[in-house]
Amino acid sequence: MDKKNKICIGILGGGQLARMSAIQAYELGLDIAIIEKEFNSPAGQLTKFEYTGWMDDENVIAEFCNKADVVTLENEFIESEKLRHIEEHYHKKVIPSSKTIGLIQDKFIQKTTLKNNNIPVPKFIEVTSKSSYEEIKEVLGERFLLKSRVMGYDGYGNASVSNENEFREAYGRLSKRSDKLMAEAFVDFDKELAVMIVRTSKEIDAYPVVETIQENHICKIIIAPAEVDESIIQKVKRMAIDCVKAVEGYGLFGIELFLTKKNKILINEMAPRPHNSGHYTIEGCITPQFENHIRAVLDLPLGSTKMIKKYAVMINLLGKKTEDDKMKIYNECLKHKDVHLHIYGKASSRLGRKMGHITIVGNDLNKILSKAKSIEEKINL
Amino acid sequence: MDKKNKICIGILGGGQLARMSAIQAYELGLDIAIIEKEFNSPAGQLTKFEYTGWMDDENVIAEFCNKADVVTLENEFIESEKLRHIEEHYHKKVIPSSKTIGLIQDKFIQKTTLKNNNIPVPKFIEVTSKSSYEEIKEVLGERFLLKSRVMGYDGYGNASVSNENEFREAYGRLSKRSDKLMAEAFVDFDKELAVMIVRTSKEIDAYPVVETIQENHICKIIIAPAEVDESIIQKVKRMAIDCVKAVEGYGLFGIELFLTKKNKILINEMAPRPHNSGHYTIEGCITPQFENHIRAVLDLPLGSTKMIKKYAVMINLLGKKTEDDKMKIYNECLKHKDVHLHIYGKASSRLGRKMGHITIVGNDLNKILSKAKSIEEKINL
Repeated sequence: MDKKNKICIGILGGGQLARMSAIQAYELGLDIAIIEKEFNSPAGQLTKFEYTGWMDDENVIAEFCNKADVVTLENEFIESEKLRHIEEHYHKKVIPSSKTIGLIQDKFIQKTTLKNNNIPVPKFIEVTSKSSYEEIKEVLGERFLLKSRVMGYDGYGNASVSNENEFREAYGRLSKRSDKLMAEAFVDFDKELAVMIVRTSKEIDAYPVVETIQENHICKIIIAPAEVDESIIQKVKRMAIDCVKAVEGYGLFGIELFLTKKNKILINEMAPRPHNSGHYTIEGCITPQFENHIRAVLDLPLGSTKMIKKYAVMINLLGKKTEDDKMKIYNECLKHKDVHLHIYGKASSRLGRKMGHITIVGNDLNKILSKAKSIEEKINL
Repeated sequence: MDKKNKICIGILGGGQLARMSAIQAYELGLDIAIIEKEFNSPAGQLTKFEYTGWMDDENVIAEFCNKADVVTLENEFIESEKLRHIEEHYHKKVIPSSKTIGLIQDKFIQKTTLKNNNIPVPKFIEVTSKSSYEEIKEVLGERFLLKSRVMGYDGYGNASVSNENEFREAYGRLSKRSDKLMAEAFVDFDKELAVMIVRTSKEIDAYPVVETIQENHICKIIIAPAEVDESIIQKVKRMAIDCVKAVEGYGLFGIELFLTKKNKILINEMAPRPHNSGHYTIEGCITPQFENHIRAVLDLPLGSTKMIKKYAVMINLLGKKTEDDKMKIYNECLKHKDVHLHIYGKASSRLGRKMGHITIVGNDLNKILSKAKSIEEKINL
């Protein structure tokens, strides 16, 4: 990196993850450049260095790379070849690297990589137009998930299958999105867990292990830390660190795991970026995930990942059928003295869209959890 | 306020106080408009709604007021008539109001207002070209401060006087800045204290009382909470609330006080805005001063002002003679796991200029204080 007054972090993508990363970068006195398909994205609003276009518009990429000293991303959907182009043609460091993203963005390659590194994952199998329900069932059992290998998020690209009709319907639907599919054994889990791992050239650290509660395949509630045995916590952290090492990952990673009813831990999937399951860290931990993300991108020393109180609860504010006036929402939510409200500044709401989140930090889990739930119910964003 | 999707707060001024306010506004999904004399100010960098110009450029003011739903400020130097123009001509609420600013910005009027409300202040007297050292000395005693009534900050506009020569020198120097001067009795204080007060139409709340340690008239260190008797704490909070009520103030206020060696409390001065003595609240309290500032400007319910650990220490990073490369500064500072670094993104440094600050939160005051001091020494910003 050049010696100069102001360092600029370029983020590929301008959604809420980029927005919250930008906010933390600003506290550190850094500049932010955003590239996003549409103008005025949640993060684009916050910077003069907003580039509108996408990865195949070489002019826009050139301008963006000219401004950014180092490049990071807020989703794993950009083909790794495009990231390699930024690394090789524009000589910009991309964190996580094109190589790491190449090992993560295709879930079949991701799972294969983890499996080859002796990291426990649910049974999985590639699915092509030639695959039959019977063949898959033989390997995975009667109940399994059909998944898009790429571009899946928040349940888009996933289907639960337990008979041949469901398989045909799901195959027809998912193969329209992408013809690269895979199937994964259904895991009869006790809890879904997640953990954020952050890594620089000198350090690797794990945030607390949290429980994630999904609704319609979308993360709805995070309970930090997860109420599981300390031995499980330690095992989860070790496995998550192994995952990051397996993909030669540097930067910030969200790893989602299953804790089975038999206390077995299996990796569900990993994301090479800030993660919804880590939003609670903004107020719940000494260093927010977004700050450690920025620090890791610059290969700076990492901040403490410890919690500031015993517990934190985060609930996503997902788009509802009706949308209240903003002042009503603020009044409803903020009348609770210890609630932290985050709204992402998206141009419009739609059913189930991640519009914001709330966090409460405290020492009495039941109290903060029921409070957070009752507030979320009253907010129509 | 109109019912609409996005609410915009207009801030008069684009320095670090506006920048940190903007950051908190962004977490709440609000828009920010900044007006500042120069382009690319610390806060102006963070928004598309950056208006370059100042209060006498009616076109710029009109554009700014057209964008902002409500207006606030980051210093008390704008003549109250100009604020009244925004209120009356553009029909925008200004928080704190032109009336409140009119009672604060001239320190002689401020002190007179407080005195008339039976709030204890140091003895003070108006100083004109006709005032003699002997006359002032008769009222205030041998040692006093000569002060600009307006536009003083960080020691600019203050002079300590203890004989006639000093008086003449100080008078000559200060009257060049402004011919409105006052003199104030020297207070032989034990500690300097400060407290942030936040007020809406429905609530008034006090943050913890802190000790402020000045160097060359500039705030250098904040210790939160101040280590004084609980009875003093309560009295300070009551007096600070009285100050805000005396000026009919709504919004956020920083009140600086003297604790004399005889345990008497005197108001030093009040600022109608976020205050350097409240920066520790970003990580030290449940709700940062900047968030409650934004909430109060919108007359929303206030967040908790409680601390999250027993103590917080904040040290200002003032411009030094030499300025290190930014990466060196980041590495030096951030290698301490629990240090929170804030850099304001100012275009250039100069000796004594407020360039950033660090905060450490913890339960052992001596430990965090000596750690913060040793870090500050190594940072050349």
